[in-house]
This record gives sequence, structure tokens and C-alpha cells, in this order.
Amino acid sequence: MNSRLFTFIGGTNGPWRVRSVTKVIGDGLDPVERLDVVAGHAEPSQGKWLLRGITSNERYVTKAEKQNLVAKQQGLGRAGSTCAALIPIRKNQEWWILSQEERRRVFEESSSHVATGLRYLPAVARRLHHCRDLSASEPFDFLTWFEYAPAAAQAFEQLVAELRVTPEWQYVDREVDIRLERT
Amino acid sequence: MNSRLFTFIGGTNGPWRVRSVTKVIGDGLDPVERLDVVAGHAEPSQGKWLLRGITSNERYVTKAEKQNLVAKQQGLGRAGSTCAALIPIRKNQEWWILSQEERRRVFEESSSHVATGLRYLPAVARRLHHCRDLSASEPFDFLTWFEYAPAAAQAFEQLVAELRVTPEWQYVDREVDIRLERT
Repeated sequence: MNSRLFTFIGGTNGPWRVRSVTKVIGDGLDPVERLDVVAGHAEPSQGKWLLRGITSNERYVTKAEKQNLVAKQQGLGRAGSTCAALIPIRKNQEWWILSQEERRRVFEESSSHVATGLRYLPAVARRLHHCRDLSASEPFDFLTWFEYAPAAAQAFEQLVAELRVTPEWQYVDREVDIRLERT
Repeated sequence: MNSRLFTFIGGTNGPWRVRSVTKVIGDGLDPVERLDVVAGHAEPSQGKWLLRGITSNERYVTKAEKQNLVAKQQGLGRAGSTCAALIPIRKNQEWWILSQEERRRVFEESSSHVATGLRYLPAVARRLHHCRDLSASEPFDFLTWFEYAPAAAQAFEQLVAELRVTPEWQYVDREVDIRLERT
């Protein structure tokens, strides 16, 4: 069985060299040299820090949006994608008590989260991991993983900058931005 | 901090005497004498079986529906609510690959899940626990917990029967119905 759970281990091992660990909103994370991404669980002893997330069903995209995303996106692990970013995010209580329709309205009708992401496909590949319901005390709600070629680095900065000024980001109360390169 | 995680321990301890463990769809669960409900984690050694679930944000209800539910519902633990039911449910892959809007359409527009539940408030109190994203290998997707007075027992049977004949239930591939009384 393919695990839906992934563990990101920050420490001294793994194929990804850490270029930067930037505190964007709220508490940061300790700087580390390398990042390993493993399918399934890992022992807390393995790194300096360890983040877990699980891929899950779509929460906001419509059927038409999903079809557009699937048609344009490419998989992780492309040979040329030597750049990556791990962006852990937590949203505040105000977000989580909104109804589904209210969250959708902020997410897409006000913030164009899907439409923005679509413009950067297939250059930027992405996998979203949910953490919030793994336990009652996770440090983040989401771990977003991006992979792209050096030629798309500027486009990636643009994508991240566009999302950070949306109304949706008003609900983000913790965000760390970890940039990586495969060596 | 109030834990959102709850563990249901089937064994020989706890305030709830098990009246029946019925296999409704797919594999059942071993019969046990008593059920304990604890906030947070519990050790697997504590009972014959152990089910975990976490309360989470609303997935389908609209703001108006949520307001109606909140206005009519009452809390768990009422003195007169000596009857309870624990109904663990798993939905199939076909359900989980639907988009959000498609799941909502089946859930409410076709199956009137909220409208049906509303008619049985405040007699039947309810807490929904999510399991699907606790790990990649949970035996159920949801654990639904109901409490009601003996006088509402017939109404509760009606509620359960109504939901089981909806289009939504076509996506259920495992369901166990555990009935309990507080002693």
C-alpha cells in the first residue's frame, strides 16, 4: 500500500541541501543542513525536527478546477527539478470556525488560490499534506511541498508573493519557508 | 488544552454497558462487554479493540445550516441520556475522489443529511470524530457518537434508518452499529 503519510526530517541527512529557513509569520524552525522526505512514519530521534503530513481528499476545488489542475500538472521527482520548497502553514481559529462555503469563498472567489496556482503549472509541481487532524497538537495545519527547475525560480517567487497578499493569508498565523536544492 | 482526539476502548471497563455490536456493512467488530470513552490517546493494551477519532472543522454544512444546528442541539452528558450509540463508518474510494461540490451534492441536496439530523434535535445529541487523516491505515473514516434518553430510542432508530437508505449510504463500505446503556 502506498502511504499517504510523509515525514519531513530536518537534520544532517537526505538528498536536499537546505539553502534557507525563513520565518515568515509567527515562530520559525531551527536551521538545519539537510532535509529528508520519507514515506510513512519516522522516529523523532532521526533529525533536529520532524514534520508529518498526510495527503487527503480535495477540500475546495470544484470538479472543473480539478480537471484543469490534473490536465496541466506534472509529477514530483522530475530530473530537472533540482529546486524545492517546503512551506509549513498554520491557519487561525477564525478560519477553522468558518463554514465550508465561507472558506471556499475566501480561498477562491476572493483569493484565486487555484487560478493562481494553475498559471504556474506545469513548471511548479506541488503536493499538499494535511497535518491538522493527525493529532490534537500539531505545530502546523499544512505542509506544502514544491519542486521546480532553476529556470522557474523567479516564477516560483512570484507565485508565493501573489498568494501571500491574498485575503486568505489574513488567516495564516504561522508560516515558515524552507528552500532546498538537490545535490 | 481540550483534546480534540477521543479514544473509544471496547473491553471490560467504562461506564457504558454494551447491549449489541452489529455488523451493518462489511467487517464487524468483536463483541465486548463495556465501552470507555477517553479524551486523548490510550494504550492499545487497554481493551479488546480501540478506535480513535478527532473532532474537526465542518466539511459540508452551510453557515445557515450550522446556525440551525447550533440553535437546536444540546450537549453530550445530559443526565437523562442513558442510551448511546457508537457507529463507525468507512466510505469507499469512489466517495473520496469526488470533488467537494459533488460530495456536498450527495450529502445534502440528494440525501438531506443535515435536514434529517435537524428533525431529531435536541433529543439526539451527536459528536462526529474524523479518523481518515489520523494515519494512512485507519479502519474507519468516521466515528459517530450519539446520546439520547430511553424515550427517544424509537426516534433514534428512525433517524438511523432514514440515513441508511439515502444515496450517500451507497458510498459506505463498512459500518458497525454499537448500542450502549449507561450503568
